[in-house]
Amino acid sequence: MSFKAILSYDGTHYFGWQKTKTGPSIQEELEKAIFRIANEQSLPEAASRTDRGVHAEGQAVHFQLKKEFEPHRLQRGLNAVLPPDIRVVSLESAPPDFHPTLQASAKEYHYRLSTGSIHDPMRRRYAWHVPNPLDLSAMAEASQDLLGRHDFTSLANEAEKNPYCFLEKIGIDTLNPGLLQIRLLGDRFLYKMARNLVGTLVYIGCGKLPSDSIPQILASLDRKKAGITAPAHGLYLHQVFYNKSKDAKIIPS
Amino acid sequence: MSFKAILSYDGTHYFGWQKTKTGPSIQEELEKAIFRIANEQSLPEAASRTDRGVHAEGQAVHFQLKKEFEPHRLQRGLNAVLPPDIRVVSLESAPPDFHPTLQASAKEYHYRLSTGSIHDPMRRRYAWHVPNPLDLSAMAEASQDLLGRHDFTSLANEAEKNPYCFLEKIGIDTLNPGLLQIRLLGDRFLYKMARNLVGTLVYIGCGKLPSDSIPQILASLDRKKAGITAPAHGLYLHQVFYNKSKDAKIIPS
Repeated sequence: MSFKAILSYDGTHYFGWQKTKTGPSIQEELEKAIFRIANEQSLPEAASRTDRGVHAEGQAVHFQLKKEFEPHRLQRGLNAVLPPDIRVVSLESAPPDFHPTLQASAKEYHYRLSTGSIHDPMRRRYAWHVPNPLDLSAMAEASQDLLGRHDFTSLANEAEKNPYCFLEKIGIDTLNPGLLQIRLLGDRFLYKMARNLVGTLVYIGCGKLPSDSIPQILASLDRKKAGITAPAHGLYLHQVFYNKSKDAKIIPS
Repeated sequence: MSFKAILSYDGTHYFGWQKTKTGPSIQEELEKAIFRIANEQSLPEAASRTDRGVHAEGQAVHFQLKKEFEPHRLQRGLNAVLPPDIRVVSLESAPPDFHPTLQASAKEYHYRLSTGSIHDPMRRRYAWHVPNPLDLSAMAEASQDLLGRHDFTSLANEAEKNPYCFLEKIGIDTLNPGLLQIRLLGDRFLYKMARNLVGTLVYIGCGKLPSDSIPQILASLDRKKAGITAPAHGLYLHQVFYNKSKDAKIIPS
């Protein structure tokens, strides 16, 4: 039986999604939970291999079991044995050929920034503290130049065979006084691209890069021309889309 | 020189405000930070001795130093050496006779509840998870009977000489889908009164107590008639008021 699970997790204490010998991972915790509940070995696969310290609100995961399980009961069982920083938000049966990475049509990431001179202690693990005043209109203006299909080599920390991505939406919103959120919707993201993109927008917001510098940065194909890599703890994999129609992908307001 | 500091802290890893031999405390961390920056021993006093695990967004603190310090520089120094889960939000010089507890005219507490069947992992340390559906109008109705001056013995975990408190406002708001906040403004709060009050309102919201039960609970002077003590990790000391005029105390919307 094939399952699609949606996971929410606090990435603070994990070395990322991917199982590793170095430290705890989401994949390994889920694998152990599946074994405890189903008494079967099954290695779950995720839509996005989130990095160390990155959070998820809607990671899509696939795993298979030989036994039959009622999805809702399996979900409750997994949540009963998973650590409290990992939750199965939903669980449903999936087609046997369901592939969470290959079939994903788009991914939405959110990045949270804590502004103001003092970093709220309750947000220290969940938002990047940027005490510098940010020019939001410069950031919004620059984000327009990132939309569409581009070679994103300048915003990737590793060379990739296909460096082209289609960035569909970028939204910059003040969630609360002192809490800024950047929403990114795209068909695919290169290694550390979301964090490099945020770091570059923050550089523009601080005046370290001009607001019209994006076209040159992208054209240079040179990582050094862009801003810093924003830290992992501000990033959330918000949602993975499997819609066939591109039109159905909308960033919720 | 006398100082008034406003502190924000994540209470998760502390045994409360008060210095204790059992474990780390906010008071001790601040005392150590003051010693590192000012090279003087000074035990800070707070408006509220928040319990183990309780958070603060606006704890008011008083301490004295023999040396002269420019408040803004002292604040920066303290924030540089304090652990990241404790922040000095503001610091100013205070009259030498300033007493954070005796002179407080009102305190405002906020309590956050995570609703819905799955507890958001990012909120697990910052909100109490109540999966039962809550009847918010029953809770709002019951909260009206708590307003004003009452003997709050039924909502205190310890007998106190003066059990009378004046509860000025109770607000119940949905902050986000799945996040409820209860705001309490009163002249004083008995031991665990805020958490017992929230636990009782939640009992009413779940239908375990009728919405008109508050007058009987208060009249009984019997702790056992009220609901449970809500857990510490949902409670925030939001603000301490020192205004002379009662009219100036307004719960911000």
